[in-house]
Amino acid sequence: MTDFFKGIPQIKYEGPDSTNEFAFRHYNPDEIVLGKRMEDHLRFAVAYWHSLAYEGHDPFGGRTLNRPWFDGGMEAAKMKADVAFELFDILQAPFYCFHDADVRPEGATFAESKRNLDEIVDYLAQKQATHKTQLLWGTANMFSNRRWMAGAATNPDPDVYAYAAASVKANLDATHKLNGANYVLWGGREGYETLLNTDMKAERAHAGRFLQQVVEYKHKIGFKGQILIEPKPQEPSKHQYDYDVATVYGFLKDFGLEGEVKCNIETGHAFLAGHSFEHELATAAALGILGSIDMNRNDLQSGWDTDQFPNNVPETAVAYYEILKAGGLGAGGTNFDSKIRRQSLDAEDLVLGHVGGMDTCAKALKAAAALLESGELEAAREARYAGWKSEKAQAMLKGSLEEAAARVTAEGLEPQPKSGRQERLENLWNRYV
Amino acid sequence: MTDFFKGIPQIKYEGPDSTNEFAFRHYNPDEIVLGKRMEDHLRFAVAYWHSLAYEGHDPFGGRTLNRPWFDGGMEAAKMKADVAFELFDILQAPFYCFHDADVRPEGATFAESKRNLDEIVDYLAQKQATHKTQLLWGTANMFSNRRWMAGAATNPDPDVYAYAAASVKANLDATHKLNGANYVLWGGREGYETLLNTDMKAERAHAGRFLQQVVEYKHKIGFKGQILIEPKPQEPSKHQYDYDVATVYGFLKDFGLEGEVKCNIETGHAFLAGHSFEHELATAAALGILGSIDMNRNDLQSGWDTDQFPNNVPETAVAYYEILKAGGLGAGGTNFDSKIRRQSLDAEDLVLGHVGGMDTCAKALKAAAALLESGELEAAREARYAGWKSEKAQAMLKGSLEEAAARVTAEGLEPQPKSGRQERLENLWNRYV
Amino acid sequence: MTDFFKGIPQIKYEGPDSTNEFAFRHYNPDEIVLGKRMEDHLRFAVAYWHSLAYEGHDPFGGRTLNRPWFDGGMEAAKMKADVAFELFDILQAPFYCFHDADVRPEGATFAESKRNLDEIVDYLAQKQATHKTQLLWGTANMFSNRRWMAGAATNPDPDVYAYAAASVKANLDATHKLNGANYVLWGGREGYETLLNTDMKAERAHAGRFLQQVVEYKHKIGFKGQILIEPKPQEPSKHQYDYDVATVYGFLKDFGLEGEVKCNIETGHAFLAGHSFEHELATAAALGILGSIDMNRNDLQSGWDTDQFPNNVPETAVAYYEILKAGGLGAGGTNFDSKIRRQSLDAEDLVLGHVGGMDTCAKALKAAAALLESGELEAAREARYAGWKSEKAQAMLKGSLEEAAARVTAEGLEPQPKSGRQERLENLWNRYV
Amino acid sequence: MTDFFKGIPQIKYEGPDSTNEFAFRHYNPDEIVLGKRMEDHLRFAVAYWHSLAYEGHDPFGGRTLNRPWFDGGMEAAKMKADVAFELFDILQAPFYCFHDADVRPEGATFAESKRNLDEIVDYLAQKQATHKTQLLWGTANMFSNRRWMAGAATNPDPDVYAYAAASVKANLDATHKLNGANYVLWGGREGYETLLNTDMKAERAHAGRFLQQVVEYKHKIGFKGQILIEPKPQEPSKHQYDYDVATVYGFLKDFGLEGEVKCNIETGHAFLAGHSFEHELATAAALGILGSIDMNRNDLQSGWDTDQFPNNVPETAVAYYEILKAGGLGAGGTNFDSKIRRQSLDAEDLVLGHVGGMDTCAKALKAAAALLESGELEAAREARYAGWKSEKAQAMLKGSLEEAAARVTAEGLEPQPKSGRQERLENLWNRYV
Repeated sequence: MTDFFKGIPQIKYEGPDSTNEFAFRHYNPDEIVLGKRMEDHLRFAVAYWHSLAYEGHDPFGGRTLNRPWFDGGMEAAKMKADVAFELFDILQAPFYCFHDADVRPEGATFAESKRNLDEIVDYLAQKQATHKTQLLWGTANMFSNRRWMAGAATNPDPDVYAYAAASVKANLDATHKLNGANYVLWGGREGYETLLNTDMKAERAHAGRFLQQVVEYKHKIGFKGQILIEPKPQEPSKHQYDYDVATVYGFLKDFGLEGEVKCNIETGHAFLAGHSFEHELATAAALGILGSIDMNRNDLQSGWDTDQFPNNVPETAVAYYEILKAGGLGAGGTNFDSKIRRQSLDAEDLVLGHVGGMDTCAKALKAAAALLESGELEAAREARYAGWKSEKAQAMLKGSLEEAAARVTAEGLEPQPKSGRQERLENLWNRYV
Repeated sequence: MTDFFKGIPQIKYEGPDSTNEFAFRHYNPDEIVLGKRMEDHLRFAVAYWHSLAYEGHDPFGGRTLNRPWFDGGMEAAKMKADVAFELFDILQAPFYCFHDADVRPEGATFAESKRNLDEIVDYLAQKQATHKTQLLWGTANMFSNRRWMAGAATNPDPDVYAYAAASVKANLDATHKLNGANYVLWGGREGYETLLNTDMKAERAHAGRFLQQVVEYKHKIGFKGQILIEPKPQEPSKHQYDYDVATVYGFLKDFGLEGEVKCNIETGHAFLAGHSFEHELATAAALGILGSIDMNRNDLQSGWDTDQFPNNVPETAVAYYEILKAGGLGAGGTNFDSKIRRQSLDAEDLVLGHVGGMDTCAKALKAAAALLESGELEAAREARYAGWKSEKAQAMLKGSLEEAAARVTAEGLEPQPKSGRQERLENLWNRYV
Repeated sequence: MTDFFKGIPQIKYEGPDSTNEFAFRHYNPDEIVLGKRMEDHLRFAVAYWHSLAYEGHDPFGGRTLNRPWFDGGMEAAKMKADVAFELFDILQAPFYCFHDADVRPEGATFAESKRNLDEIVDYLAQKQATHKTQLLWGTANMFSNRRWMAGAATNPDPDVYAYAAASVKANLDATHKLNGANYVLWGGREGYETLLNTDMKAERAHAGRFLQQVVEYKHKIGFKGQILIEPKPQEPSKHQYDYDVATVYGFLKDFGLEGEVKCNIETGHAFLAGHSFEHELATAAALGILGSIDMNRNDLQSGWDTDQFPNNVPETAVAYYEILKAGGLGAGGTNFDSKIRRQSLDAEDLVLGHVGGMDTCAKALKAAAALLESGELEAAREARYAGWKSEKAQAMLKGSLEEAAARVTAEGLEPQPKSGRQERLENLWNRYV
Repeated sequence: MTDFFKGIPQIKYEGPDSTNEFAFRHYNPDEIVLGKRMEDHLRFAVAYWHSLAYEGHDPFGGRTLNRPWFDGGMEAAKMKADVAFELFDILQAPFYCFHDADVRPEGATFAESKRNLDEIVDYLAQKQATHKTQLLWGTANMFSNRRWMAGAATNPDPDVYAYAAASVKANLDATHKLNGANYVLWGGREGYETLLNTDMKAERAHAGRFLQQVVEYKHKIGFKGQILIEPKPQEPSKHQYDYDVATVYGFLKDFGLEGEVKCNIETGHAFLAGHSFEHELATAAALGILGSIDMNRNDLQSGWDTDQFPNNVPETAVAYYEILKAGGLGAGGTNFDSKIRRQSLDAEDLVLGHVGGMDTCAKALKAAAALLESGELEAAREARYAGWKSEKAQAMLKGSLEEAAARVTAEGLEPQPKSGRQERLENLWNRYV
């Protein structure tokens, strides 16, 4: 045991009236919601990068957090892993997620980085064996090191493509070994800084082929987890090819991957792309590519990714409603791609950020489940579209434009609009949150 | 002749040193650029709605423009057409574009609206026969009337779908009769106000089937023009399904229409979707769906569609560069989806808005053509990707992830990044604009 | 009695467990919160323009709402007033607000408009005498008519300044007669479309002098209400001079009006200016110019003013916390500058929009009051600044830069940062909402 | 001489037709524009931080630029200064700007940092004595070190206020010694992350008193340069108190400093605050607080500060027009708060970025001067406001609201709007750029 969290107890459910800061007021893992344990619905994961590796930097300031495991080699990496699993235990988190760069020191060569990764993966495997927390997903960091500055699979230099292949292979192997439920690709550098020096068509073709290779490899090694793309419109790149869910869908269709790859959808990324989170979730559900979520919130007045812990139950509930309606998160989960603020220096801030986020999600889930179970919203939706159930309406879809058009004069149609009842439905929501 | 433009001469080319407000300084229709007449490159169109039908409304104010053809029936519609062709003549505009609602009075019934449309289409056909100006594209206004408030093809009421079919059929017939080079669909109401009452999956399916019906009908009547979708992210709807070019591409792929339908890309819509105009053009070119453009500019500090005439040559040149690189506009054109400001009350404002826009585009086209002809930018781009021409690089794309990965250790790859030279390329641009 | 609301009962408080759509679940006018009736805290007002005059227009569509009082003269205006007070009764609304243009038909001349206003003001006075609902504020619509297109007090034409003076005088007189608690000026056209034709310095000077004249007139007639400016950054104008609270403050200081004029702060306007609502409230409180609020919400993905009813309790609670901390709304109130969606066609939508908004505010107020009463948040804030209470700290403010600087070397200061505890404080909030 | 710029020649003016990348095509220091040398108009400055200290970091990636002077102590700082003056010589830059943190290594204590600063200031003084380039302004970096994370003068800890006083004193002394023309304060941490833990009123009072102390100290030591505040709305803080020019004006008025302190206005900061650059310049000119400019451009699709070199002449010309109209930059200058992209790795990129920026500004200045000299735009502006020159109009401003109002009925005023001629004025601009 490290002493990083000394004095901080394991967080337990005490119910909504608890005033204990170190207790859950809403997250009750074993509580049954829509026939399933709450833990199994939410499948919370702690993000290694934000919680263990973030130093407090922002674009105008350096490190604010002083952690004893910063600035070290493999020993520090192991201390970091020790602290990580202490955090997971405190939070009762069933899952965690990582990039290679979060868990192992970067080596001077690929081979050294790989050795470091292998060693720490063994260490994490031991941890997983003795703790409840398992791996939701792994991923390769292909954006921080300067070699990736112009892209990984989309780099103008084919040697970088090879390096990306080696990196994903190593991380997919690691994820497989750690029994990860998913493997994620986020293309923070797969995009461009300026169109002036970019061959978008070639880069897109390379990205597509790369993803096919990843899927082929997954099958070859028998990895059963989902492959997930995480859309983001920009930042760090001026434009990222995986802009949003709809863009990713077109990309997957183009490369025949829509049955193989799904989306890991992040709240803040949806916002930066001009969407609500629930929009991205509903779109993915409609297109059959809803895989997992990165839960956070974005400062609504900031034009960059602020990765804050969610704290608004009504907003979060709308998101879980879309998820529940789509059948749940399946092999995916709720990863907190959320970080404490750079002024939140203390170990307990790290714990309280998660406690608040988990409680927000839990309360939101319960509200969404109750509304879904009531059927009130779905009944209103169905009633609105009831006309489409008629044989005549369905025939119109099967027929020609002229046939549909002919109905207007034949039947003297002058359709009268009906109220969309938005205010009523919003009030209905407010009965549940 | 009406007297609306009394005293305003036809606009002729006088060269860059002219100080005559009523002259082109850059647009010289017969000048040869990259082996083609400038007019044939640019294919300018005047938008009937902005130039003839806009009354000066904004969300907080009513009519400011007083035109003698407002508030009338068929006679007023004909006066409007007379004035329209006078404007086209003054501007030497080779094309115009319209919605049904711009050219004919709305009738009390569909049949009456259709009769009005037929009558005005005959009138426009006569005009076209005696003037140089022809139809770039027609379209159905399926967003202004209250019947469309919840969508046209995506309406919860199947009778509205039928009405939409009848409207598109009527307008496609009209466009065909007027020998239009394209037919455009802009789905301003094909989206949602709130997810709470929306069945996105069903609406998307209806939109897809509708578009298939339109394409089938086009072939049936032998219309040779292009069918174009005009992406826009939102406004008037909170979300529109044709969000941007990449989204439309996924939609077309899904319904097997990527070989049949292209995009009409608008400057301001690109901006509202979080993109640059050149990004949308480059994306459409890479995906093979670049059809036509709606040229304007958006106020960069406004979060809505301001539809101003373009006036920034460097920005516009970057757009035409993408177009020229993609092989030009083909059957498409440069439609000014641009309107004079609501304080620009005079007839001459309407003329000068177009003169400025046309000159901006013409100067931009020439700069883009010169840079393309020089090969300087393309040479830099090719050099950047030169590594991909090697057999080894191409083999890597054909092979497996492991094979690509194996190169890293086998060859001891530690790729070193090269400068992207963005500043140099920007300076290069500035030698041409 | 008109039959517009036929079948809709008066809305009464039934408590949080009620499932009656036509009941308040949180708004309980007589309930005591922090020693004051809830009604007296919130001082709800219905906005005449949105609820009685809005026709459903948006920038791409015309009227969707068909109300029997549209398109008429004075009789229609009276029917509108009848319906208005029926709505106020149904909602138990203590206040309403109006522009002249909402309540009276526009005349062909100023004199006729004025006569119409006088007549309807008499009618409203009778209504007020026999109903509970009183006037929170009146205002002049100086943005819809084309005469205002280039500004009212800031118009390049001094005759328009005179017209603005006459309009404000008429409306201030009307507000005085109706015993209004405030008079509001919103400068939707006091700004510019383009700097190219604008003399900002002159326009600002005219706006300042105009406001002085208004204040002088207020005192002359003995109007005891507050004069309020409503900031908005843009829309309809490209830029409006009353951009936000901080900008208005500088303007008031410049013209010696900071003791005479306060702000009417709108949720959506704050958002459009790049601020949170609570930021604008806190700023106004810090500067001593918090006057009243226009309560609504803005679509977070839309770049224009969407004026929706508030429905998010946590967000709304943060706003009321700032208000309560500042001592409450005083003579101001909570005006719903909120409108039903253009697809919300039915009379009951109008009622339910308000019910939802009122309940959201009431629940938010209670949460804010409970947190304020607990002292938990204020204690944390005070502790953070406790160092400034020392004599040494206060002396440093009174002294010179050198004296403050000298402490660093004399005392060997190397200040160590302390956690800002943001996550803890957010969790604290979530115990109350 | 270092060998960093080996092979790169001094940049000289060769005229618009030059195709030499290492030549100015527009910047001709001795060319007379409006009676003054171009160099004396523009007063270009190189920013030490971007050009010498920037390592290529972005929020998702580390160092990309490898410079031999990174990671060292005082010797490295001197090499950096050597390279800096080589760059200034190459560019013929008349000025440079710095923060303390750019030029000296941070010490373990304030005293050590101060000794380092003193030593490097002596070194810079020698450099200035033997080179053409002088100091435009100095400033204290009070945002990068973790001690400033919660603010400098606005920190909850009064010891940090003292530290800020010592820092500004040291930097103002250094600037004075180096004969700087201005001293700048940018309050990147003077704001808040969350209102929940913030006492805005107290922080604002401390900021105001601090600025008074700075001004008092300036006078005491006889520093003749201008004190400048640089507005920015946010980033790194969620909200910064010096949001924009209008906000700063209110702040200065409040603390009686409007005659003592002016603004250093940055292009990208204007954009982030929802304004155009020309708006901020025109506002500052109207309020008498236009001091200096930080010239750059912001990516129009990015919500954060991208600090790119300007490359759009028409946009830049509009800015210089406002500056020329206001009488020029005076003691201020054109500081390139612009950085090469993180992929621009080479020494020549650093040079070419500046060359492009300087040429853009020079061409813009000439265009703006020509238009101003022509009087065409000012004549149109004056004509628009001509009505205000009448005695009657001026009397109306002096009189009362009733007197102004009385004119409406007495004179039967029904003012008719006149065209704002925006398109004509935009075309006029395009004749000059």
